[in-house]
Amino acid sequence: MSLNAEELFSERALGFRPSEIRELLKLVDSPEIISLAGGMPDGRFFPIDRVIEASTFALREYGKKALQYGSTEGIKKLRVLLMDRMEKEGVSGIDLDNVIISTASQQGLSLVAQVFVNPGDTVIVEEPSYLGAIQACASMQAEFCTVPLDKDGMQMDILEDRLKELQKAHIRPKFVYTVPNFHNPAGVTMTLERRKKLIELAHTYDLLIIEDDPYGEIRFEGESIPSLLALGGKDRIVALRTFSKISFPGLRLGWIVAREDIMNKIIVGKQAADLCSPALTQYISYEFVSRGWLDDYVAVVRREYPKKKNAMIAALEQYFPAGSSWTDPQGGLFVWAKVPEAIDTAAMFREAISAKVAYVVGIAFYPHRNDNCHMRLNFSAVDPEHITEGIHRLGDLLKSKM
Amino acid sequence: MSLNAEELFSERALGFRPSEIRELLKLVDSPEIISLAGGMPDGRFFPIDRVIEASTFALREYGKKALQYGSTEGIKKLRVLLMDRMEKEGVSGIDLDNVIISTASQQGLSLVAQVFVNPGDTVIVEEPSYLGAIQACASMQAEFCTVPLDKDGMQMDILEDRLKELQKAHIRPKFVYTVPNFHNPAGVTMTLERRKKLIELAHTYDLLIIEDDPYGEIRFEGESIPSLLALGGKDRIVALRTFSKISFPGLRLGWIVAREDIMNKIIVGKQAADLCSPALTQYISYEFVSRGWLDDYVAVVRREYPKKKNAMIAALEQYFPAGSSWTDPQGGLFVWAKVPEAIDTAAMFREAISAKVAYVVGIAFYPHRNDNCHMRLNFSAVDPEHITEGIHRLGDLLKSKM
Repeated sequence: MSLNAEELFSERALGFRPSEIRELLKLVDSPEIISLAGGMPDGRFFPIDRVIEASTFALREYGKKALQYGSTEGIKKLRVLLMDRMEKEGVSGIDLDNVIISTASQQGLSLVAQVFVNPGDTVIVEEPSYLGAIQACASMQAEFCTVPLDKDGMQMDILEDRLKELQKAHIRPKFVYTVPNFHNPAGVTMTLERRKKLIELAHTYDLLIIEDDPYGEIRFEGESIPSLLALGGKDRIVALRTFSKISFPGLRLGWIVAREDIMNKIIVGKQAADLCSPALTQYISYEFVSRGWLDDYVAVVRREYPKKKNAMIAALEQYFPAGSSWTDPQGGLFVWAKVPEAIDTAAMFREAISAKVAYVVGIAFYPHRNDNCHMRLNFSAVDPEHITEGIHRLGDLLKSKM
Repeated sequence: MSLNAEELFSERALGFRPSEIRELLKLVDSPEIISLAGGMPDGRFFPIDRVIEASTFALREYGKKALQYGSTEGIKKLRVLLMDRMEKEGVSGIDLDNVIISTASQQGLSLVAQVFVNPGDTVIVEEPSYLGAIQACASMQAEFCTVPLDKDGMQMDILEDRLKELQKAHIRPKFVYTVPNFHNPAGVTMTLERRKKLIELAHTYDLLIIEDDPYGEIRFEGESIPSLLALGGKDRIVALRTFSKISFPGLRLGWIVAREDIMNKIIVGKQAADLCSPALTQYISYEFVSRGWLDDYVAVVRREYPKKKNAMIAALEQYFPAGSSWTDPQGGLFVWAKVPEAIDTAAMFREAISAKVAYVVGIAFYPHRNDNCHMRLNFSAVDPEHITEGIHRLGDLLKSKM
């Protein structure tokens, strides 16, 4: 008799849904398809020779340690470097115990969800919100309270309404999760005024904030805005950062900043999750950052990505039908496009694949799955010519459906 | 007003206990202390030049891919290699969909716990059991049903008694977790007869088995015994394997073998946990394995570790007091010693540190914390001279307490 695994799965696992990005992207495995569906940096700018130099040096210099178990918190010299880097960005009041290395920021999200979320607990997220955060919270059976974004980020008046409603219902949200810079998928950035308001609301309503900032350093227009962590301090803010967009996702490294009592829980959770992040990639990152090569690479990205974004915006203007709109991000990797309401971007996806172009269906970013008219368009991984052609194909398809 | 984080922690996190290994090992940070407390391979045998060659080649050959996001399942060519390797060990009936890469086997344990364990669910584990598995299950709020080990591994008559008791209580255990080869901490290996009996019991009682086998390839005496997976097939067995002991823990790579419906849940769990394991270390591992260097390295370990183990056994015979006993493993990394019952190994730990020697307190490996007279002694990471001296110091301390 064969085992019936369904009888054994946890409630949590029974609720697991295969990611639709993943399912849909299985269709995108053809070189003819122009994929605007990714969320990857452009590998053509990876300084491979420098990475080889850093990895050879790391293995030569730290060999035994680089191939050995490391501490759960991460390699100390890398943590010091990251702490210094954050202090230069205006973060104060943190010391080494407040900074640990994570297996990229997805692990940060997963650990935060594990540390705070009981089944049925409420978390406040932006609408739309980053899919990986939705997955991490959903895997701990969170309920989602959503606050819509506009061009200036999370709408604070609506957040305040939500907080009042929750208070009336005697529900204490576990945290407010936000991607303040160059939002994934929406491309928008939270203004300084709203950041200050969010911190004020955190004090008024006794809230914890999870600030997820993978893209902040990839600003190619406008002025940097201080992070929530810099503005509000670590007492009410847990910050998640990653090397995946400012250097290389294949290293699987990020870092978490949190006050010590929260960090202690995160560390125990990380021990159970993977004991420690790869020592080898930590030493490579240390060498890469300390030689100034990270800054060099970020400078290249800041110079090259706007060419891609501009190509995308120009193509949207030229090819998308009247009634469409889109965000024009000052950094990051994504444009968020709204199509005329009669069109369902999820239903249209297979036709797009037939037309040799791919995007991510907007509904994937809505915890309540209440939107069918958006698409996430990635410009970082594609060259400008293919962006133009891809948007042209999409525009033609959209027009054919009007 | 400062945030009171205690009010926000999940039930799960409120139950997190800092690992005592971790807490105690903070005391071991002195070069004068001979640490028999580790669980690490001996870095002196790491073939650094070969790793440099593999990593340089991997970056040169697969550069953009090696630094980019990979699929959640892992790099296909590495999975094929591992599948072939397992088939040579006698595993049949698996294909590529049954094998994924994990961020070392701790992640395998964590995902298995997430996929199967609801708070309060029962899991069956050996007594003693691997601490990382206890942590992973405890972090999902499992209850532990324990089955004692003897020199032939898990005691099947006691397992059967436990299964009958659970059945009477209408409790269905989520799985039986076992480390059949060179058990951590106990050093013992499950006999072929017991493996067959375990599989028979799995059919009779409709059980899932989690086979955790980090050490199987590090056999330096006696004959290999087929794995549970080879004997029983994937229907009722999920197998966890890792590179951490057969090559380098610093890569953070392992692999999971499971039937497809279970694997689909594990994959969704892994997406939420860390999206994917490091592509860079996967390509390095592929190069290292495919060039035959893994086999070369395992051969070195198999030649060198028994010298260490023999030094430890000889020193135990010479220096430990009458009334002590220990296992004599045919492979792996650990000897498990029992001290005379009047002595509490946890209470003695700080004195051992004063005597400049460290071990892991036995109680850490007992989910019900019902044993105080064992210690785990690692021989892999220490050279024979220091092993002898460390056991000498421990023996003197034990004798002083009689």
